[in-house]
Amino acid sequence: MQDFPLTLDQFLRHAAKWHAHAELVTAHEGGEPDRIGYAALMDRSLAVSAILSDLGVRQGERVATLAWNSQGHVEAWYAIMGMGAVCHTLNPRLTAEQLAAMLDQSQARILVVSADLVPLARQVAALSPGIARVLVIDGPAPGDWHLATALEGLIAGASRDVPWGGFAETAPSGLCFTSGTTGAPKGVTYTHRSSYLHTLKLLQTDVMALSGRDSVLVAVPMFHANAWGLPFAVPAVGGRLVLPGRQTDGANLARLIASAGVTVGVGVPTVWLGLVEHLEATGGELPSLKRIIVGGSPLPPALMERIEQRLGVIVQTSWGMTELSPSGTVAPAGDPVRDAGLSGRPSVGVDLLLTDADGVALPDQRGTEGHLRVRGAAVIDRYFGQEKPATDAAGWFPTGDLARIDATGNLMITGRAKDLIKSGGEWINPAEIEALVGALPEVSLVAVIGRTHPKWGERPILLVETCDAIDDAGLLAPLKGRVAPWWMPDAIIRLDAMPLAATGKIDKIRLRIQHGGG
Amino acid sequence: MQDFPLTLDQFLRHAAKWHAHAELVTAHEGGEPDRIGYAALMDRSLAVSAILSDLGVRQGERVATLAWNSQGHVEAWYAIMGMGAVCHTLNPRLTAEQLAAMLDQSQARILVVSADLVPLARQVAALSPGIARVLVIDGPAPGDWHLATALEGLIAGASRDVPWGGFAETAPSGLCFTSGTTGAPKGVTYTHRSSYLHTLKLLQTDVMALSGRDSVLVAVPMFHANAWGLPFAVPAVGGRLVLPGRQTDGANLARLIASAGVTVGVGVPTVWLGLVEHLEATGGELPSLKRIIVGGSPLPPALMERIEQRLGVIVQTSWGMTELSPSGTVAPAGDPVRDAGLSGRPSVGVDLLLTDADGVALPDQRGTEGHLRVRGAAVIDRYFGQEKPATDAAGWFPTGDLARIDATGNLMITGRAKDLIKSGGEWINPAEIEALVGALPEVSLVAVIGRTHPKWGERPILLVETCDAIDDAGLLAPLKGRVAPWWMPDAIIRLDAMPLAATGKIDKIRLRIQHGGG
Repeated sequence: MQDFPLTLDQFLRHAAKWHAHAELVTAHEGGEPDRIGYAALMDRSLAVSAILSDLGVRQGERVATLAWNSQGHVEAWYAIMGMGAVCHTLNPRLTAEQLAAMLDQSQARILVVSADLVPLARQVAALSPGIARVLVIDGPAPGDWHLATALEGLIAGASRDVPWGGFAETAPSGLCFTSGTTGAPKGVTYTHRSSYLHTLKLLQTDVMALSGRDSVLVAVPMFHANAWGLPFAVPAVGGRLVLPGRQTDGANLARLIASAGVTVGVGVPTVWLGLVEHLEATGGELPSLKRIIVGGSPLPPALMERIEQRLGVIVQTSWGMTELSPSGTVAPAGDPVRDAGLSGRPSVGVDLLLTDADGVALPDQRGTEGHLRVRGAAVIDRYFGQEKPATDAAGWFPTGDLARIDATGNLMITGRAKDLIKSGGEWINPAEIEALVGALPEVSLVAVIGRTHPKWGERPILLVETCDAIDDAGLLAPLKGRVAPWWMPDAIIRLDAMPLAATGKIDKIRLRIQHGGG
Repeated sequence: MQDFPLTLDQFLRHAAKWHAHAELVTAHEGGEPDRIGYAALMDRSLAVSAILSDLGVRQGERVATLAWNSQGHVEAWYAIMGMGAVCHTLNPRLTAEQLAAMLDQSQARILVVSADLVPLARQVAALSPGIARVLVIDGPAPGDWHLATALEGLIAGASRDVPWGGFAETAPSGLCFTSGTTGAPKGVTYTHRSSYLHTLKLLQTDVMALSGRDSVLVAVPMFHANAWGLPFAVPAVGGRLVLPGRQTDGANLARLIASAGVTVGVGVPTVWLGLVEHLEATGGELPSLKRIIVGGSPLPPALMERIEQRLGVIVQTSWGMTELSPSGTVAPAGDPVRDAGLSGRPSVGVDLLLTDADGVALPDQRGTEGHLRVRGAAVIDRYFGQEKPATDAAGWFPTGDLARIDATGNLMITGRAKDLIKSGGEWINPAEIEALVGALPEVSLVAVIGRTHPKWGERPILLVETCDAIDDAGLLAPLKGRVAPWWMPDAIIRLDAMPLAATGKIDKIRLRIQHGGG
């Protein structure tokens, strides 16, 4: 059989040749979205490769991006990865100090930055002397910064004569630091092969079931875990790739969905809550939308029902991690039973194992809670720059999640091992309390954290954001008889807005700082 | 990222663990179908590996099968491939002499054979002294043949302790000789990697869109081009794999579809013609059936309409070749326009090129007829045992097909270069005439071949199998004004039954012998 390296440039190449006029659409603040066909996109992306090559970028070198979901960012991705360099995505919601620490690890010399992030980029560059050049996308470069040049001005005159591919498929393609909601960020290196195989997985009917007839809104950021691989998967089938730019609030998403005929939306639960609230307030309808794929944090059943009812869509739950490229499991759209608490079954190429706290496999892998380990073609082997494997001796990666697997093989994440609360020497699992309270229709978002306690060490407290009136007794009612009495939260704190981390997940670190009494 | 070799044992492993009770169903003549879950299937298949290992089978060695689509054949496949041996599938519709010539190439020592094919196997073994052992599946072994043992009697007592996988993903997994409807058979070697990637392609929504909720009738033989890869793809997603055994006539298929709740049927057009004729005669209904995927030979538009109307299904056309593992293109089920003459677009990992007769790329790749070349992850590099590449210098495999690609990238096969008729020094393309006549609702099957002619060299003649009365003028009417006058067939020959080759395609070699006057 023919040699066919699994390199990521293949996706845009294929789109440019076979779906030349299928579009990438980027929301444009205060105007109609920008649109470009894949053939033109590839042409521009080749130009960016040539520009990077002129700047001395070589295979294996990290090139950083600090940017929103936009056409320019996609062009930079394919340009960097296509020529064999490594795309190091930076999260604009982190501090300059955090970003500088990551750049210190990756040693990137060149930074691609969205125009409105230039102020942050300046702070970062001041802390990162290794940054030698800043290429501005999504707008003009500031006149008063000698490092910065607008990429747009260079594209027309650039050569297109830079080879894409031609290196080993196991070469690194991307670098992303973990979200760090429960610890210090660590770098995950993706390879062309792992992201290629991950893409093929997403395209399966029982996973994301993406088609050339779909218009896919990517409301998950490109700076986090490859935007779940969608900038690869959507062009691969010639679908429409729809990017929100900076704004993922309900009003902007509703406008973009309508104008780009979005059929599938992908994002964390809080994004869809914002969209539903906007539509509830304004009374709009989005008839093109057929499916919403959620992940990244637990989905309260009431929110799932609200999304399905208000938007007239099927909600697919999923589970993943930065270390998994990031998709681990996705509930198929065609499953007759949909359950907010279940995250689907693994598809071939992903395997799951439940262990005890010491990593010993549980004798019964079904119906019992255990520590979740995972193995697969797009699962981390070791963190960036580390000698030590991230896996156990048998090759399994310990996720830090607690989980059950039901009789039909569906995964239910039951908590984070690090979130467990130790009260009087016994463990309380906040996720179980969160799931029960989160099922109340009045509750939008819920979190349970441990608050330090002089006698018990820690005691659970309940933090809620509600969408309808409900008293404290009502909030605690679902727990009666379903958790041990000593699991009952000591206090209820009502928040106007639950704090969210840079990735859209509930920021438990901030909750612990503000309310944990530590 | 973790090391994850793309070996075919992964599919059954995954099915056994995550879809343990999903079933393989085999039609059983004169009774209810046999059913087995994937976990039990894997257990039995491991036993077969152990039996083969005891017989001295080693990695890379060819083991031959001469068998119908049955559970025992699937067990043998995974047993052979899982342990790293190479499964050489033999076509029971060929002669003993042809099969012995293939075994002479593959040097297989062990032959797995369906019980009712033992008489043929004896003839083959008599011509192939290298065959040292015959393992009989699908029934008892004959008492009077010292080489033959029933595999079933060995399975219960066999060990299961044979490692699967653990070799390079580029290791060979299968060997299949081309159908030879237009020339001498040549061996195609599949590798684990190529068939794994081919499987992931089939699972895409815009390709075969297979799901764990599907029950898939594999009416394409396992002895030809991996049964289009379905014995890998269906377990991979935990779908029901439905095998017809020997009988693929309309009555048997209808019974099997009803009893196994088949949702997707895959086979050559003549198989579905048989099913439709059976239902038209008996008045039955098959409400579970949703899609029919056809390929292997051109589909007359009238037959496509008849299948869709009578079965209430969507027909997906496709194009492939043994050398392509075999899927090249498939028309997506969701495409709003379905056209019997179009075969869909290539999905990522397959690329197409149209050239002139000398292999030079046509300047315009859209809307012009050319010689079709193909490149991809599951496309042949060189034939079995040959030094010479099967590809051109740029890595393209010349298919021998003539084709057009329309503005939206859809492939239209317009003929076989070898089928072209040379009349008075000019070329006539039989496929164009066949497409026009085949569009008549009265015509079931049609073929145009060249008949030797003292003056013109060759002249076209038309051979038809009709389902309704139509006179000669009616048969030729669609050609008037649409082909050159000298393309009009010199004669019309009406056949009660069009001769079919071993793969279900129209046997043009036989037609030429019987009617070509050569």
